[in-house]
Amino acid sequence: MAVSIVLSHISALLVAVLVLLWALAFRTTIFLRFYSSSVDGAATATAVAEFDHLYFVLHTLLMVIGFILFGGEGILAHRWGVGLGWARGPRKAAHLWLQGAALGFGVAGLLTKFKGNKGVLANFHSLHSWMGLLCLLLFAAQWTMGFLSFWNRGEGWRARTLLLPWHVFIGIFTYSLAVATAESGLMEKMAFLHTKHGIPRSSLEFTLINVLGLTLAIHCGLVVFTLIPVKHKESSNSTM
Amino acid sequence: MAVSIVLSHISALLVAVLVLLWALAFRTTIFLRFYSSSVDGAATATAVAEFDHLYFVLHTLLMVIGFILFGGEGILAHRWGVGLGWARGPRKAAHLWLQGAALGFGVAGLLTKFKGNKGVLANFHSLHSWMGLLCLLLFAAQWTMGFLSFWNRGEGWRARTLLLPWHVFIGIFTYSLAVATAESGLMEKMAFLHTKHGIPRSSLEFTLINVLGLTLAIHCGLVVFTLIPVKHKESSNSTM
Repeated sequence: MAVSIVLSHISALLVAVLVLLWALAFRTTIFLRFYSSSVDGAATATAVAEFDHLYFVLHTLLMVIGFILFGGEGILAHRWGVGLGWARGPRKAAHLWLQGAALGFGVAGLLTKFKGNKGVLANFHSLHSWMGLLCLLLFAAQWTMGFLSFWNRGEGWRARTLLLPWHVFIGIFTYSLAVATAESGLMEKMAFLHTKHGIPRSSLEFTLINVLGLTLAIHCGLVVFTLIPVKHKESSNSTM
Repeated sequence: MAVSIVLSHISALLVAVLVLLWALAFRTTIFLRFYSSSVDGAATATAVAEFDHLYFVLHTLLMVIGFILFGGEGILAHRWGVGLGWARGPRKAAHLWLQGAALGFGVAGLLTKFKGNKGVLANFHSLHSWMGLLCLLLFAAQWTMGFLSFWNRGEGWRARTLLLPWHVFIGIFTYSLAVATAESGLMEKMAFLHTKHGIPRSSLEFTLINVLGLTLAIHCGLVVFTLIPVKHKESSNSTM
């Protein structure tokens, strides 16, 4: 159990490093060119493209690090809180606030898409956007329900007992769907980089994105694995 | 419980209908044009493109219906087998053979990619292919281990008891990863259709693919939900 928590943290760190490396190392010059652009036609077009790229980088960082990694740490708060010797109260607080931060990052990541030069609605045609919106809606509903019911204790003990398994299941589903959405976003980005910008599929950048996508999938598996109570991992099953 | 099994089946049927509709309704003419193509240059290029499209359609149908939907039904065999009044033996046999069929379809779906005009290795640059290969490797290892250990009973009762939770967890992970891989494949296909063939993002075809992708994600959630034993859905939890 402790091993899978440590592996979850390590894989989260690896995902963060990989996504930062991709966002910063492959387009570092964008930050320099920003200040040297003048206002004539070609430079304006370049500036617009660079703004779009900046918003894309922001979207990626906010969603992968802010929404998914913070969300994963929030999910695991009840596990690593035990390791730190925390009582149930602080563990619940850590869970609530980490998920609150993740939701904030998720909404901010969504807003970056509205800043592009194509308007708001143009962003809602893709499968990626549909999956992402479903994630954010489920996440917001889960957080609100969790705050009112488990934190504020608006429901009695019996109702909370009935709600909890649903909260856990929908939470894991939302988290996994967010990871699947991220994978679909990475694939879409690579398809565009390949067809529109001619970046070869065997390039270092694509290999880095592939490693990022695979590490993210494995990280998701580790987080969900860590959630399984130890007794179930060792228990027998009538269907064996 | 019974409700979620029924919903799993209905959503599986819906996914199958949607993917068939996409594969057949939007390019029906391909089957007609095949026979009328002559052997001069332009016609040969068209024929190659049509062969590539045919292999793409085969890949999609084999992976979505053969690998994912058969795999999902195989996962659920231990659940709907109970509903049909089957003993443990027939349930295990249904699980083994449905997963065997899914593995066969998955390998066939992989092979269609080797038939394209770009050669074998050109297919292994994308994140989609890396995720898909990981799925097939895990699936093959799971099936072999399951056959030797749970079916053939090569291991003693104690070893099987220790193996089962791993078999279940890795199975659910592989299944979810396969769905995420499919979503990434749909996104890549739409990106190419948009940039290379000019199909607008708001077209009927893209809307159909989006609905397919979302239905597939919800189907995956329903299958995993159905796996949760009833007693855990109603049980309390010390961390509430």
